[in-house]
Amino acid sequence: MWEKALDRILSQLMVRDQLRVRFPDGQTRIYGPNTGETASLEIADIAALRALCVNPSLGLGEGFMNGTLTFNERGLEDSLVLLLRNREAGQLPAWLRAAHHMRYHARNFIQRNNPIRSRQNVAHHYDISDDLYRLFLDADMQYSCAYFTDPDMSLEAAQEAKKAHIGRKLRIEPGCHVLDIGCGWGGMALTLARDFDARVTGITLSENQLKTAQRRAEEAGLSDRVTFKLEDYRHIRGTFDRIVSVGMLEHVGVPNYGTYFQRVNELLSPDGIALIHTIGRSAPPMPHDPWINKYIFPGGYVPSLSELAGPLEQAKLWQSDIEVWRLHYARTLRHWRSRFETHRDQVLAMYDDRFVRMFQYYFTVCIIAFEHQMQAVYHFQLAHERNAVPVTRGYLYSGNVQGEG
Amino acid sequence: MWEKALDRILSQLMVRDQLRVRFPDGQTRIYGPNTGETASLEIADIAALRALCVNPSLGLGEGFMNGTLTFNERGLEDSLVLLLRNREAGQLPAWLRAAHHMRYHARNFIQRNNPIRSRQNVAHHYDISDDLYRLFLDADMQYSCAYFTDPDMSLEAAQEAKKAHIGRKLRIEPGCHVLDIGCGWGGMALTLARDFDARVTGITLSENQLKTAQRRAEEAGLSDRVTFKLEDYRHIRGTFDRIVSVGMLEHVGVPNYGTYFQRVNELLSPDGIALIHTIGRSAPPMPHDPWINKYIFPGGYVPSLSELAGPLEQAKLWQSDIEVWRLHYARTLRHWRSRFETHRDQVLAMYDDRFVRMFQYYFTVCIIAFEHQMQAVYHFQLAHERNAVPVTRGYLYSGNVQGEG
Repeated sequence: MWEKALDRILSQLMVRDQLRVRFPDGQTRIYGPNTGETASLEIADIAALRALCVNPSLGLGEGFMNGTLTFNERGLEDSLVLLLRNREAGQLPAWLRAAHHMRYHARNFIQRNNPIRSRQNVAHHYDISDDLYRLFLDADMQYSCAYFTDPDMSLEAAQEAKKAHIGRKLRIEPGCHVLDIGCGWGGMALTLARDFDARVTGITLSENQLKTAQRRAEEAGLSDRVTFKLEDYRHIRGTFDRIVSVGMLEHVGVPNYGTYFQRVNELLSPDGIALIHTIGRSAPPMPHDPWINKYIFPGGYVPSLSELAGPLEQAKLWQSDIEVWRLHYARTLRHWRSRFETHRDQVLAMYDDRFVRMFQYYFTVCIIAFEHQMQAVYHFQLAHERNAVPVTRGYLYSGNVQGEG
Repeated sequence: MWEKALDRILSQLMVRDQLRVRFPDGQTRIYGPNTGETASLEIADIAALRALCVNPSLGLGEGFMNGTLTFNERGLEDSLVLLLRNREAGQLPAWLRAAHHMRYHARNFIQRNNPIRSRQNVAHHYDISDDLYRLFLDADMQYSCAYFTDPDMSLEAAQEAKKAHIGRKLRIEPGCHVLDIGCGWGGMALTLARDFDARVTGITLSENQLKTAQRRAEEAGLSDRVTFKLEDYRHIRGTFDRIVSVGMLEHVGVPNYGTYFQRVNELLSPDGIALIHTIGRSAPPMPHDPWINKYIFPGGYVPSLSELAGPLEQAKLWQSDIEVWRLHYARTLRHWRSRFETHRDQVLAMYDDRFVRMFQYYFTVCIIAFEHQMQAVYHFQLAHERNAVPVTRGYLYSGNVQGEG
């Protein structure tokens, strides 16, 4: 039965390239035209075969993690790119298209992300272990897209460039009070305090990140100017001259965008500036990858501009600039994956083989999303006043900024 | 009866400042608190009073044009700003709020703008007379927002800066074939041919603009490289390396945004770059000003980002950069209004007093929209390829560009 179902899927899907499949019973079948390229997939057991048929995106990732799906000839990345290319040209059977639509329309339910759920979601990924993240992130532990003003610059330099670019966009003056929503391990907050002389309040929902961030502030002698709190963006009180939020909106969920931008409105001082950095899709909305949702970011979602623009406008904030980073995240992820591979033995000392493959799969599907699908990073610079920032963007590119001149 | 209706409107509206109204029967009444500022309005006849009650935005403009509404003490601009400030804080009676909502929901009908209607709409405003436009526009006849890299620069210099900025965004190489959708009197097309060595095809629906543009191409010796056509964006055929469209999307209408961006997709070469320059609203959608729609731009509309983002995404184009110009159009309009005032006698030699007041009112309400409401100019840089433009925006600000360094 499941052989037949996969047969039907692949017959409709493979219209550009060839896929050679070895089924659990030892049989091999070939799908797609001879004219394209070839990938080959080995399915070790019926469970993996069934999972592929029921929910291909989820089944592919789980099979790879479990070691029951193996891509021979080409590696994981090339094989997934080939499958994606055929998916864009080919067709999926009706039952899978229906499931895709259902997932999309369930997003308002799935992404409710109330404060309790948000904390669980955050703990799922960010509380794994600092030691693991240290093995693949840069020294400052920036777990978000870096900014490659030069394609050959190091990950460390590109993360520095990201923080500097955001600092310029925020036009921080000494003594400014900055709120960092989703402060991670505190790198952005410490940088803004050290390099821009700001006072910073950073909030996170991860106890792990909080502890590390607090320790780092003490070590850097910045505890008098930087405060970290375990707090939800819905509960924080006060008024801030600047608000920065990097890689946090992805966890907010579509039903909460209105609340999120309304909070930015309320928390931002009348002449303040906010900078929201988020992954987005330069394409119509679609459901989040079910494997990523299950294993990496529960409650997460990559919004399209059309989903953000309405809630943004309702918050009555000026969108004073919208930057769209293409390819920077693919480069960042390639650095992370390569560092992860380099430290594979150390990861294996902490976790098992399945965990290693989970991270390999995670990095790889994300690279593909930024290189072959229409995923990007959006920078929304927001303000109450139309002249909170200069009327041209020259101020972002003045001086001897590397690669920007 | 109409006195009572206006009485009711103003009693609810004037919550911050004072308005002294002299009614047609000679009676004077004062609305609003004593603590704010004061404006005074004289209503000469019952027709003007009635129009004010039925549709205040339309009635105000018509009364001003007809000379039956006069703002004493403060001039037109200050009085309108005062009324707007109260409108934002106060409340309108239910019947006016209902009419406002009806107008908003009628936009899909009002803005059908099929090719025949589009031509009539264009003729209404752009075929008035070149001589009139020459009296207030810059020498190149740029009838769109200028770019003030320095607040004190001349209108001529700011229009040059606008064209240069757009040229840089398009990354034109010698020989590139550029399509200019809504080419006006040809200034952008001639500039791109002369300064960037491009081949340009400009399309307009105004016979008047076409004739002037063609004559200018000949005079400039650029007829071999620049072609102008009387053509609708829905009918043009071909593939273009670059597409530029400045101040034209405002005439397209909400129901046609999908078609418009789909046409950009179809007409743009695979490695092409497009730049769409349009007035937009950094706020939720609202109906267009009924006076502007009746007297200046029939079928026109100022879109919000939330109305553009969906159609943009459907066209599967990368939004590689979104710039938001604030205040530049207010400055441009102040130049236009002041030049118009300077040449008032020459306008009066061609038209009557009512026409002069129509243009005064037009410039003034537009200045207010950019200075006190959330109107801006959006630049959408679009491409098929994610790397059609560099991954940072430094290339727009390199070199010795005035005010950009």
